[in-house]
Amino acid sequence: MRHKDAQKQQAIIRATIKLVNEIGFDSASVSKIAREAGVSPATLYVYYENKEDLLVSTYVHIKQTFAAAVIEDFDSSIPIRDQLKRFWNSAFQVIRKDPAPFHFSEQFAKTPYMDLVNSSEVEKSFAPIMETMRRGIEQKIIKDVSFEILTVFMFYPVLTLANPKVCMHFSDQPENVDIAFDMAWYAIRL
Amino acid sequence: MRHKDAQKQQAIIRATIKLVNEIGFDSASVSKIAREAGVSPATLYVYYENKEDLLVSTYVHIKQTFAAAVIEDFDSSIPIRDQLKRFWNSAFQVIRKDPAPFHFSEQFAKTPYMDLVNSSEVEKSFAPIMETMRRGIEQKIIKDVSFEILTVFMFYPVLTLANPKVCMHFSDQPENVDIAFDMAWYAIRL
Repeated sequence: MRHKDAQKQQAIIRATIKLVNEIGFDSASVSKIAREAGVSPATLYVYYENKEDLLVSTYVHIKQTFAAAVIEDFDSSIPIRDQLKRFWNSAFQVIRKDPAPFHFSEQFAKTPYMDLVNSSEVEKSFAPIMETMRRGIEQKIIKDVSFEILTVFMFYPVLTLANPKVCMHFSDQPENVDIAFDMAWYAIRL
Repeated sequence: MRHKDAQKQQAIIRATIKLVNEIGFDSASVSKIAREAGVSPATLYVYYENKEDLLVSTYVHIKQTFAAAVIEDFDSSIPIRDQLKRFWNSAFQVIRKDPAPFHFSEQFAKTPYMDLVNSSEVEKSFAPIMETMRRGIEQKIIKDVSFEILTVFMFYPVLTLANPKVCMHFSDQPENVDIAFDMAWYAIRL
């Protein structure tokens, strides 16, 4: 029974991502999403209070799933640069394999729904990455600038480069992933 | 008479940006946009064939206006790094002053309307910047990687950092603009 529930919830999340990406936040109604997921609206309301709750939960789910995938082979014993390179490579692979959730979350972050997200809950799932950055700064390996700035140079580029809609040719040459990581590293290292 | 026309067209473009940012591409109908601009739908159709044409033209207009502002004090006689820093600083100021057109164009770039843009027309307006990059590569000052990758490290960061919705604290310290430019520069320089 529980197994079936998890499957249904997965189907609802997938349907939410698909429909919002295709027709936008306004047009993607709860009934359309339920139909796409193959469940009744009543079933959807068992899991989510309303459309707002559904969208916010989907966003948080995407972020947490991404964080879990990226930190999967986290190892705090290897050098800071190598830790960051692992995060970078995992992030690239995850996004390449399925960019749809990232389109959703980028769009979502620009809507007023974003104000409803418990951001400390989301940040918590990225804690090992933030911890690596913090230790890098402490050990004078990484520039002592805000996490905001570090993120813009270390992590946003991988999101952009892995997105075939924005960077059409990046993945034509596999060595580009290493080249781009080095560029990010030169930006942030001391 | 001509003057009045230009004003009307400006009003329509402003209304398009405002409404699309507020309610999304689907919900922003031609009649709502006309009302917001203070013109009749019939008048709007004098300037734009249909909603598609209106959205695509608004996007191209935003890009060209941005390019014109950024390259305003372009000077090919100064060092490559200084040329890029001028582009960077101008871009930062322009976006900070009015981020709304950038929200529009970022969203727009992810919609299917993007396929209708004459991208060589848009790229042409950024030619001096591309030319600076090209000469930087030729003179072995900048890494010989694709423009796509250079853009991700040199220009996307300024768009992100100047956007107060994404980087809330960046502008608290004015020196951050110089610090971030140096980071971008370290990423791309040879």
